[in-house]
Amino acid sequence: MITFDAVPEEYRHWTLSVDGRVATLAMDVDEDGGLKPGYKLKLNSYDLGVDIELYDALQRIRFEHPAVGCVVLTSGKERMFCSGANIYMLGLSSHAWKVNFCKFTNETRNGLEDSSAHDGLKFIAALNGTTAGGGYEVALACDEILMVDDRSSVVSLPEVPLLGVLPGTGGLTRVVDKRKVRRDLADMFCTSADGVRADRARQWGLVDAIAKPADFPALVKTRSAALAAASIRPADARGIKLHKLERMIDEAGYRYAHVDVRFDRPGRSATLTISAPTGKQPATPDAIVAAGDRWWPLALARQLDDALLLLRTNELDLGLLVLKTRGDAAAVLAADATLLAHRDHWLVRETIGYLRRTFARLDVTSRSLYAIADQDSCFAGLLYELALAADRVYMLALPEGDENPPEIQLDGLNFGLLPMVNGRSRLETRFLDDAAKIAKLEGMTGKALTAEPALALGLVTLAPDDLDWEDEIRLALEERASLSPDALTGLEASLRFAGPETVWTKVFGRLSAWQNWVFVRPNATGEHGALKVFGTGSKAQFNFERV
Amino acid sequence: MITFDAVPEEYRHWTLSVDGRVATLAMDVDEDGGLKPGYKLKLNSYDLGVDIELYDALQRIRFEHPAVGCVVLTSGKERMFCSGANIYMLGLSSHAWKVNFCKFTNETRNGLEDSSAHDGLKFIAALNGTTAGGGYEVALACDEILMVDDRSSVVSLPEVPLLGVLPGTGGLTRVVDKRKVRRDLADMFCTSADGVRADRARQWGLVDAIAKPADFPALVKTRSAALAAASIRPADARGIKLHKLERMIDEAGYRYAHVDVRFDRPGRSATLTISAPTGKQPATPDAIVAAGDRWWPLALARQLDDALLLLRTNELDLGLLVLKTRGDAAAVLAADATLLAHRDHWLVRETIGYLRRTFARLDVTSRSLYAIADQDSCFAGLLYELALAADRVYMLALPEGDENPPEIQLDGLNFGLLPMVNGRSRLETRFLDDAAKIAKLEGMTGKALTAEPALALGLVTLAPDDLDWEDEIRLALEERASLSPDALTGLEASLRFAGPETVWTKVFGRLSAWQNWVFVRPNATGEHGALKVFGTGSKAQFNFERV
Repeated sequence: MITFDAVPEEYRHWTLSVDGRVATLAMDVDEDGGLKPGYKLKLNSYDLGVDIELYDALQRIRFEHPAVGCVVLTSGKERMFCSGANIYMLGLSSHAWKVNFCKFTNETRNGLEDSSAHDGLKFIAALNGTTAGGGYEVALACDEILMVDDRSSVVSLPEVPLLGVLPGTGGLTRVVDKRKVRRDLADMFCTSADGVRADRARQWGLVDAIAKPADFPALVKTRSAALAAASIRPADARGIKLHKLERMIDEAGYRYAHVDVRFDRPGRSATLTISAPTGKQPATPDAIVAAGDRWWPLALARQLDDALLLLRTNELDLGLLVLKTRGDAAAVLAADATLLAHRDHWLVRETIGYLRRTFARLDVTSRSLYAIADQDSCFAGLLYELALAADRVYMLALPEGDENPPEIQLDGLNFGLLPMVNGRSRLETRFLDDAAKIAKLEGMTGKALTAEPALALGLVTLAPDDLDWEDEIRLALEERASLSPDALTGLEASLRFAGPETVWTKVFGRLSAWQNWVFVRPNATGEHGALKVFGTGSKAQFNFERV
Repeated sequence: MITFDAVPEEYRHWTLSVDGRVATLAMDVDEDGGLKPGYKLKLNSYDLGVDIELYDALQRIRFEHPAVGCVVLTSGKERMFCSGANIYMLGLSSHAWKVNFCKFTNETRNGLEDSSAHDGLKFIAALNGTTAGGGYEVALACDEILMVDDRSSVVSLPEVPLLGVLPGTGGLTRVVDKRKVRRDLADMFCTSADGVRADRARQWGLVDAIAKPADFPALVKTRSAALAAASIRPADARGIKLHKLERMIDEAGYRYAHVDVRFDRPGRSATLTISAPTGKQPATPDAIVAAGDRWWPLALARQLDDALLLLRTNELDLGLLVLKTRGDAAAVLAADATLLAHRDHWLVRETIGYLRRTFARLDVTSRSLYAIADQDSCFAGLLYELALAADRVYMLALPEGDENPPEIQLDGLNFGLLPMVNGRSRLETRFLDDAAKIAKLEGMTGKALTAEPALALGLVTLAPDDLDWEDEIRLALEERASLSPDALTGLEASLRFAGPETVWTKVFGRLSAWQNWVFVRPNATGEHGALKVFGTGSKAQFNFERV
């Protein structure tokens, strides 16, 4: 079983150092530290284990080092920034592993841009040596790319010519869409196994600035200081500690304080039950800081995030996630009110960021998502976002006059605080271009809605009554679990992201889909495919049919 | 060898009738008229042959029936509008065939929307019976969908539950993006094998209006008359005849009057040479109408369109298209001036539309495209769009003072008259969000640019001198032809469409990529895959791993 736990003291591949407002994350991969046997992580290449540490380091910078305004990503090795994902690891991996690995890597990289766009944490890639493939793709996710001009280091995306696959973590999209490299130059760049040296890289817009080796440290220092100085992160704040996540894992599922995951293996589903806060909750910044990672919104984000990552990686056959909630809706709304009132406080802002990225992870999870608003559920505010992320929402309709019917409630959290990767709220995406509808819903804020009005407003999909409820839910789950998982993945990726596109939706919906296809083609992964024969001395054999 | 020739007198599957400003295209598929052996086209299902006739009929309406302002797409059969692509045909087809078939179908359907958006030709889908899969997808491409409410006819997208594949011709995208069906209702709809009847279809926004069988003809008549009356197409114009395309096909390639295609099978490439007009060209609407389909811009569009379709379908191994031009640049610019001056005349407008759709077909052609501006080339105006569509442009640089160097020229055609499927000109896409650059280039209109200034302006990729030229071109072609064709397809699909997305780019870049992936997964096309076992009585067997 793969877990995503890490602590800086035990990093094998990264060094995190903090100097005032600038943190430096130096990649220095231990070639014997692969997550699985069978490959060596040479030349600062990476596997999922390296990425797990990177993800952990970023979270710690966000929460434990709030004074940091700029992170410098660089290499601890000489003349080699990073050579990308380890090719032997890819060659040994199953299709599902490759796809899951790319997705997590993408999410971590999108997370850099997310923190930069929303939370003032800026990133500089300091390419102090050769930078290839996924190494350049992580640089592309940074605000600025600086490169050493030593007449030998190159930057390249050699996947197409060397491996017969695509740069799988945003490279193609970011080169033309983010950096606006001209498409024909991008074509030259992405079909060259050799890559380009610093001068041409700057000329083509692949990097922002270059410097001779002797001047490179000063360039990095100047630019990182400038970005840090402009950051909205508080220079004088002290961080909170992210403690080891408390979690029980057994045959039946995963248990966290606020998230319970139950497997139904015969039914090929898992039920995630999210709990509202209980007891007195902090309502001031000081109290929130004092609560630290026990504060419900932050604890919930960590637990839900972890549960999704564990499910994705370890439970491929559980194709349907059933989302439930339990507890006091008023407590959720109160927590939301605190989030909204103090959204400009660094810890609250970072917590909102964590929630935003976690819900975004849910959106792009290639599992069917059904939300079930049953007796004792509390799909209010933040927790109603779970329902909005779902492919369907079932809500129990009880007879009028029932004392304790399931209710849903909207609040300020639902109107833009947690945008999807398409840059819009889940409500805006649901009611595409229907501003009148959104305005009407804003007027319903704080109203407890039973199944009938919720159905009429389009906030839930179906509202069976208590006579039909159990059968209908059972049949719905069975039916979903019987469908082709591949077709569902393509279906959900298409229906979940109506409307405008962003670099992020392009990475998930367009680039990843092409990569998925390329990954299963014999030209890449067949016996004589380019990815399979790399490094063996054999030449790839292609079927040259264009499809 | 598959050709795309058709004439209405020989249609086997469609009836085209024109009544004043309304044309009716009735689908009545001859079940024994399949393009290939091995399947029967039952229940108004279709294969490529049916689509070729549809494409031909649309072209004839555009050019031979200019008075038509609205086309009614309906069925000639009882209680069955169309059951979609023939499943047995899909089950028998190679991956490349399926993908090519879907692409042509997509292009024809996008063509409906293209004509509606640009040229005032409107479309009504009159669903006079059950409408499934690709049948509903063609309806989605129409301006309005009318459905008979006979208590038995349904509309459905049953691909996911029945076949384990996606609705492959825009269905998922258009349901949520164009018709703005709520995503959870779309999920219900697209996972239901049974579909929904008229009342629910209207309620969910899947159709625009419904009527009882007795009232349905009147509804269709009212709506088609209304759309036709509002059309900008000329009620009193007489059409021109689209004659049989003159073309020579032999071992070496295809030859048309203005397009020459030479195969280089060992080099896995084909060279397309496009010729400028020669002799006196019509310059007034009357003269253009008199020239009819011999008018150079229209003839060129037809020939290039046909050549691309033939290459795509019949020459899968020719992965690189080399685009050349020959002739007098001044003649091209003069033809462009005529196009611009009379763009509001119906025949000029339709010709521009044909060119727009043909260049769009080039953009989404999954072959590498290299433009070669060599001696005697004339990449001016309209023909420079070929270079803008290319992945790279090579231009020969001759010594200063040379009397006849290759030149390129911009004109009004390059600044918005031929938008790509992303809604922007090729120049705007090339220089993404760089309005100053576009303004500067507009100032260069009509200037003859040799290699050096063209390179400096970013209008070409590389400009080797005459000493290096032959070697560099030869190496470039060899290198490209050696790469994995699948990786190149994914690469080109990503780099060609930087910037904003539209329904059309989503269909080609996102939906098609997912479908490509699903098509090669064992769950769809393996021995026990859903597409393979459909109709055999066996149940599909799935690997339930979610990827």
